Amino acid sequence: VRIDENKIISEIKQVKPAAILLSCPDGYLPQVQQLASKIEKEYNVRTIISADPTYGCCDIMDDDASRLGTDLAFHIGHNSAIKRIGKRTVLIDIYEDVDFTKVIKESLSSLKKYNRLGICTISQYLHQLGKTKKTLEEAGFKICIGEGQERLLDGQIMGCRFGPAFNIRDKIDALVFLGQSRFHAIGVALSTGRPTIMLDPYLTIAEDVTPLAEKWLKRSILQLYNARDAERFGVIIGLREGQNLFKRAMQIRSKLLEYGKVVQPITLREITDERLVIFKNIDAFIQTACPRISIDGETFSKPILSIPQIEALFNIWDGKEPEVFLEKPLWL
Amino acid sequence: VRIDENKIISEIKQVKPAAILLSCPDGYLPQVQQLASKIEKEYNVRTIISADPTYGCCDIMDDDASRLGTDLAFHIGHNSAIKRIGKRTVLIDIYEDVDFTKVIKESLSSLKKYNRLGICTISQYLHQLGKTKKTLEEAGFKICIGEGQERLLDGQIMGCRFGPAFNIRDKIDALVFLGQSRFHAIGVALSTGRPTIMLDPYLTIAEDVTPLAEKWLKRSILQLYNARDAERFGVIIGLREGQNLFKRAMQIRSKLLEYGKVVQPITLREITDERLVIFKNIDAFIQTACPRISIDGETFSKPILSIPQIEALFNIWDGKEPEVFLEKPLWL
Repeated sequence: VRIDENKIISEIKQVKPAAILLSCPDGYLPQVQQLASKIEKEYNVRTIISADPTYGCCDIMDDDASRLGTDLAFHIGHNSAIKRIGKRTVLIDIYEDVDFTKVIKESLSSLKKYNRLGICTISQYLHQLGKTKKTLEEAGFKICIGEGQERLLDGQIMGCRFGPAFNIRDKIDALVFLGQSRFHAIGVALSTGRPTIMLDPYLTIAEDVTPLAEKWLKRSILQLYNARDAERFGVIIGLREGQNLFKRAMQIRSKLLEYGKVVQPITLREITDERLVIFKNIDAFIQTACPRISIDGETFSKPILSIPQIEALFNIWDGKEPEVFLEKPLWL
Repeated sequence: VRIDENKIISEIKQVKPAAILLSCPDGYLPQVQQLASKIEKEYNVRTIISADPTYGCCDIMDDDASRLGTDLAFHIGHNSAIKRIGKRTVLIDIYEDVDFTKVIKESLSSLKKYNRLGICTISQYLHQLGKTKKTLEEAGFKICIGEGQERLLDGQIMGCRFGPAFNIRDKIDALVFLGQSRFHAIGVALSTGRPTIMLDPYLTIAEDVTPLAEKWLKRSILQLYNARDAERFGVIIGLREGQNLFKRAMQIRSKLLEYGKVVQPITLREITDERLVIFKNIDAFIQTACPRISIDGETFSKPILSIPQIEALFNIWDGKEPEVFLEKPLWL
């Protein structure tokens, strides 16, 4: 694992902050702790590490950094086409220098039924795309890497954004996802509607996640039908900084009111069943914070729909077909 | 249960907000939901309910309300001498109209060994203090109710503030706590160092919480000694709006550095063991968010000291006695 320390150091030299805030996914905390000590010693900058879970580049701490009086907030591990968010947050890359050669070799037998492959991955493996493309081309495949768009770099996908994978879906027979994250690979399969094979370089396993994706899709559809006859809806606005889709939530509220539903807007920072069961006189929830909360299969006692799901439900209520509601580049 | 609706309505009439945010302890959510519907219908004001846990009047949502574009935030259920916090937060009373007569009668046999009693309670029973005083006086006790100070009204205590109980401790033989909250009653016993009897009007039980308080105190002392030889400290700054004691945390950091310790400041919104075990190379934590997190006996894998505990540890390191470190009017 390599954290882009140079970027952090150069920002520190430029801004000369008294204090900085560091946040990262849990797995990188040991490295970030070491880095913090080093920065304190060598640059005489006070460091504060965030211990809250960090879900993605939607989950920044720009306002928190301001309240703590830190001049810079480094959000480590979720690289993106955007390098700065808010007033003081800088996104810092992490590179995983694991070798994909072996797992690619391992995958050839399961990939041989396809001619044209798309490749995509998450930020920490983006630097492996070129080499992977070359290796797969040498093995005889026609390879396509989707262009970046908005927040996404070439070939990049996030938990709710799949543009570079979605946009090439008519040019390919299957997608290859680099990394050890079923969460992301299944997202790719659901968004593109194409067979998706995850190349896990750690376990050296090529896993076709398509059947799992189908299972998740069925569950999403079921949940949607479970909410069909609900009368009282809670519309949840996420309180994490980048997950606060207030306007979107209010649009959904208005539309639900048009359908004659009873609607209560609700704010919540960490959306768990434990916090929702308290609302006894609500039949179903819509949550606008993060589509993955609804789709990933954590068990909730009541239906809790993401934005694509409530849009599908609106269609059902209108007497239309629900469409293939997850086959979209963006689940928001 | 009576929520002070008149206060809410009069604020709404005055401010004429487009939207309001409502937060309350979990137990009052059904009532607050009903109230929200009523406000939407009768006053054409959009309501948003917070579903996050609400721990006290340290746990307001003034910044969140601002980010949501709401003009008023009603923090319901934690009455205080301060009626407004931040720019838009109004504290709203809840009154529990339960009758204490029966439990007082029930308590007389266990109280008879004392002559002079202090009475204290939490916000929702404050209106019962007068009647209780009268009943106990009629039974022959000398009754003292401590004067309010800072945030606290006469006879009021909170989770970390005990002024009105603490200040009368030399004038009384024991304290009577009104309500069904061992959490608060034990706090009173620890802060005052006096026998404390909780009068639970729901179960009609008079419970002497003093033995439990002694147990909690022992555990607090043990935890403190467990941290005595720690080398690497994490100093936690709470991210809940009223729990962010950044300066206090930095003072503790400086002092730990003077003792030659390694210190890493950490931010955390909801302090749980699950979030702390990730920090493998930290031996002990100091948390400045809320003393009760350390003292209430949730099990943490590593020592996690509150502010009074780290102050006691400083004394131990200086070769002094640790003092009776919880016998204070304020645990911050």
